[in-house]
Amino acid sequence: MIKHNGVVLVLSGPSGAGKSSLINKIADEIGDFYFSLSTTTREKREGEEEGVHYHFVSKEVFEEDIKNDNFLEYATVHGNYYGTSLNPVRKALAAGKLVIFDIDVQGNMAVKNRLGDITTSVFITPPTLSELKNRLEKRSTDTQEVINGRLAMARCEIQRTSEYDFIVVNDDLDTAAKVLKQIALTARLKIPHQIINTFVHKWEDIRE
Amino acid sequence: MIKHNGVVLVLSGPSGAGKSSLINKIADEIGDFYFSLSTTTREKREGEEEGVHYHFVSKEVFEEDIKNDNFLEYATVHGNYYGTSLNPVRKALAAGKLVIFDIDVQGNMAVKNRLGDITTSVFITPPTLSELKNRLEKRSTDTQEVINGRLAMARCEIQRTSEYDFIVVNDDLDTAAKVLKQIALTARLKIPHQIINTFVHKWEDIRE
Repeated sequence: MIKHNGVVLVLSGPSGAGKSSLINKIADEIGDFYFSLSTTTREKREGEEEGVHYHFVSKEVFEEDIKNDNFLEYATVHGNYYGTSLNPVRKALAAGKLVIFDIDVQGNMAVKNRLGDITTSVFITPPTLSELKNRLEKRSTDTQEVINGRLAMARCEIQRTSEYDFIVVNDDLDTAAKVLKQIALTARLKIPHQIINTFVHKWEDIRE
Repeated sequence: MIKHNGVVLVLSGPSGAGKSSLINKIADEIGDFYFSLSTTTREKREGEEEGVHYHFVSKEVFEEDIKNDNFLEYATVHGNYYGTSLNPVRKALAAGKLVIFDIDVQGNMAVKNRLGDITTSVFITPPTLSELKNRLEKRSTDTQEVINGRLAMARCEIQRTSEYDFIVVNDDLDTAAKVLKQIALTARLKIPHQIINTFVHKWEDIRE
């Protein structure tokens, strides 16, 4: 088989869909992967760690990176920057890893535009909006205002699920994990166009 | 999980790539599928059977079907029609089956246009052009003229492999079969847009 270079798996879906639980559940079974961390200029909250929850940088560093086209995508939320830095992604792809992104529908489009040929995208959703509401209220880490915001966002994003290669309805965690594992393993079989081109070039080996 | 409707797996690649051998090898492991047969107006050759190698029809029937938009795609080769009839495909999709097409790059594009949201496409290729030449000459069912035609066609088609979701290099049959099985099982997880729309409609179940 052709030597594989890195590939991308995009996971989107509302906060409360169970993305982190699913990834933790299949982490040992899908082989070597790099989980892309977002970079942000917002203050570190209690319990948050650099390199675990976010890469925390200053506004100056972030804006310098914007200038140097070092972001796959970025956005401003409540005056703070959030973005996906390209350098660690490039490094992981060069090392042949499966790069996993946890990003929203806008981010998915940005990844598709830049890395479409090696990307598999999955939208993960709770079975219903009221189930999502239950989950968010149960975990009680957010204020009602934040929960309402998340629900409004979810209602918007669910309308764009057809932009994804797969939808996984996370009703039962074990079932959803099995499906996601299957998709992740197949995502590894994508071959970057540059490798295809090299292969095609060598393929025609008959000299007449 | 959402109830699945039918999905499509397109297999392309030169005659001699081993598509039939691969399908036979994984047939018992990928579950219920319908292998789409081409319809043709050419004469039945010795050893060929209706419904096994082709659907053989008259020119009049074929042209009537063209008029009624009953072909997913069709072409004329040496004065004979060849095409993929839509009716058996529709029936198999309605029954929730995996519909497998063995078609060329033009056919792949036609399928993509009509059934893109439920289609996974795979280009199967021998490791090199000279290996393809060896295989075609070894099986000695074709004249040198036909073999040359197939090689020319292969050289053309290999340039368009980036139009496919996956490339499988059939060097070792067991390895290639494992990869194709993995792809076929994941192809089953695609959800048609119409089912997504129904799901999205029902998803927002909170009435305020």
